[in-house]
Amino acid sequence: MTYAVGVDLGGTKTAAGVVSSDGSVLFSATVPTLNRSGGDAILDATAALVSSLIGRAQAEGLAVSGVGVGSAGVIDAGRGVVVSATDAILGWAGTELTAGLAHRLGLAPEAVRAVNDVHAHALGEAWAGAAAGTASSLLVAFGTGVGGSFVLGGQPVLGHRYAGGHVGHFASPYAFHEGTAVPCVCGGAGHVEAIASGPAIRETYLRLGGTAQAADARAVFALAGTSDPAAIKAVGIGAGAAGQAVGGLANILDPEVVVVSGGLSDAGAPWWRPMERALRPELLPALAGLPVLPAKLGNAAAMVGAARLVLASPS
Amino acid sequence: MTYAVGVDLGGTKTAAGVVSSDGSVLFSATVPTLNRSGGDAILDATAALVSSLIGRAQAEGLAVSGVGVGSAGVIDAGRGVVVSATDAILGWAGTELTAGLAHRLGLAPEAVRAVNDVHAHALGEAWAGAAAGTASSLLVAFGTGVGGSFVLGGQPVLGHRYAGGHVGHFASPYAFHEGTAVPCVCGGAGHVEAIASGPAIRETYLRLGGTAQAADARAVFALAGTSDPAAIKAVGIGAGAAGQAVGGLANILDPEVVVVSGGLSDAGAPWWRPMERALRPELLPALAGLPVLPAKLGNAAAMVGAARLVLASPS
Repeated sequence: MTYAVGVDLGGTKTAAGVVSSDGSVLFSATVPTLNRSGGDAILDATAALVSSLIGRAQAEGLAVSGVGVGSAGVIDAGRGVVVSATDAILGWAGTELTAGLAHRLGLAPEAVRAVNDVHAHALGEAWAGAAAGTASSLLVAFGTGVGGSFVLGGQPVLGHRYAGGHVGHFASPYAFHEGTAVPCVCGGAGHVEAIASGPAIRETYLRLGGTAQAADARAVFALAGTSDPAAIKAVGIGAGAAGQAVGGLANILDPEVVVVSGGLSDAGAPWWRPMERALRPELLPALAGLPVLPAKLGNAAAMVGAARLVLASPS
Repeated sequence: MTYAVGVDLGGTKTAAGVVSSDGSVLFSATVPTLNRSGGDAILDATAALVSSLIGRAQAEGLAVSGVGVGSAGVIDAGRGVVVSATDAILGWAGTELTAGLAHRLGLAPEAVRAVNDVHAHALGEAWAGAAAGTASSLLVAFGTGVGGSFVLGGQPVLGHRYAGGHVGHFASPYAFHEGTAVPCVCGGAGHVEAIASGPAIRETYLRLGGTAQAADARAVFALAGTSDPAAIKAVGIGAGAAGQAVGGLANILDPEVVVVSGGLSDAGAPWWRPMERALRPELLPALAGLPVLPAKLGNAAAMVGAARLVLASPS
């Protein structure tokens, strides 16, 4: 058995854990991401977190072979650099993520690797979660945003500009209200994310005359549970857009299985049922039996997938 | 230099040519596809066509190393079998394409390979056409149908059920008329192909009050050229749906370049201009400079790509 540290570096918190080559997490820890302090401060804090985990592993007699990072932002996985990031993490764009961590940890540069966190998430599920044992899988996550990753032969398809997997940014027939495209956070309009994300479900609820006291998607789901007609409709629209999008993506990519994850998926049947009801009719006859599976690893998925970047297959 | 025969086996005709390892077609010939006669008759006729080309190559002192086939239908590229096909070629489904050809030609089984014709088309453009020299490309063809193929590292992504590349079968906001999804040939509704294919452009023209004397998309384009308002609108809707779809696909896959081909693309500016006008606003900032290129190889693309299946890189 070999061991690696997997890091899930998000906008508000950074989790890291020691992961074994069979895909299990031995122990982990979480710190806040210093999202107002710039790249160097984040690297310092991340290195300290990783260092403490390596120390604990060594104390237990486990040799850690490397560090894998799944990070928010667009990550150049070849050079290990943050290409771009939103204001959720100030000063993150341009950071030399892998070189900076390797230097701070005294590791060889090739012992540290990084990809975008959604790709890490998908790789985790493909390796040791819902899609374990498959030759290809498409993961789509519906939460604050909508993202995904197509894992083919054990590798996420990262894209030429490391921008692949932006599966929330194609047109959705649901994302039009009275003939006008609903604006999307990407600057475009009418996209899947603009109608199927958690915040979008709340926006739809408000457009349908719902009360602004519903502060977020969770509140809209709660109202739907009390038979509030606008809330039921808003959830149905968001879930329907999600399912229709996933069905179309399956026709395009023909993955062995689809894995659906994220906060909305975690809401269970009230979201999952209308999602799958919209998904199935989209599929071509060849894909009729396509397995559509809920994610298995929960919050640990990106950490596990990140560790996989530097772990060989178990032997 | 090495040589192979590339075969483009379509619903109405079968073209084959001797292709050199630099991607050029030395000579070629075409026969009607015996689309009412069943798999064995088609294999007999195809073997005869290939055999005559191999004979001509030998007469010129060129050694042919193998035969690659791009065929209509869903093709299991691993086993070389036709998984499914439409009634356009009766009795084609189930045919042992590569084994049947190898047997008839007296070639080793591994000297004959086959993929779906759209994948062959994309591989041809990726190898020796508009996308030559790129690490990844997405080809989308708009004609009688809408299909595509994502070529990554020199290999078309075929899909787990060899159904990948069905990029005409995801939802399009354009494919709704007075709130109702336009039926799609796949059995679904509201898909890109249902509004962006050539036959769909004619259907839209009729829905907009156009005259049924316009027998096909070509006639609608001709009427658009004479400022017929319904024809201009129908072409704009089809081209807009095409561009929006290609933009979304680019966000999902992040290919180095996009290649657009097919009969509608060949119509030039009247289709290409509204297509690209709809495409560009869909792109994420990271993809802003994405090259969107017309195909280069014309009718030879699938033949060239099919030959590539059995040709090594030039050395």
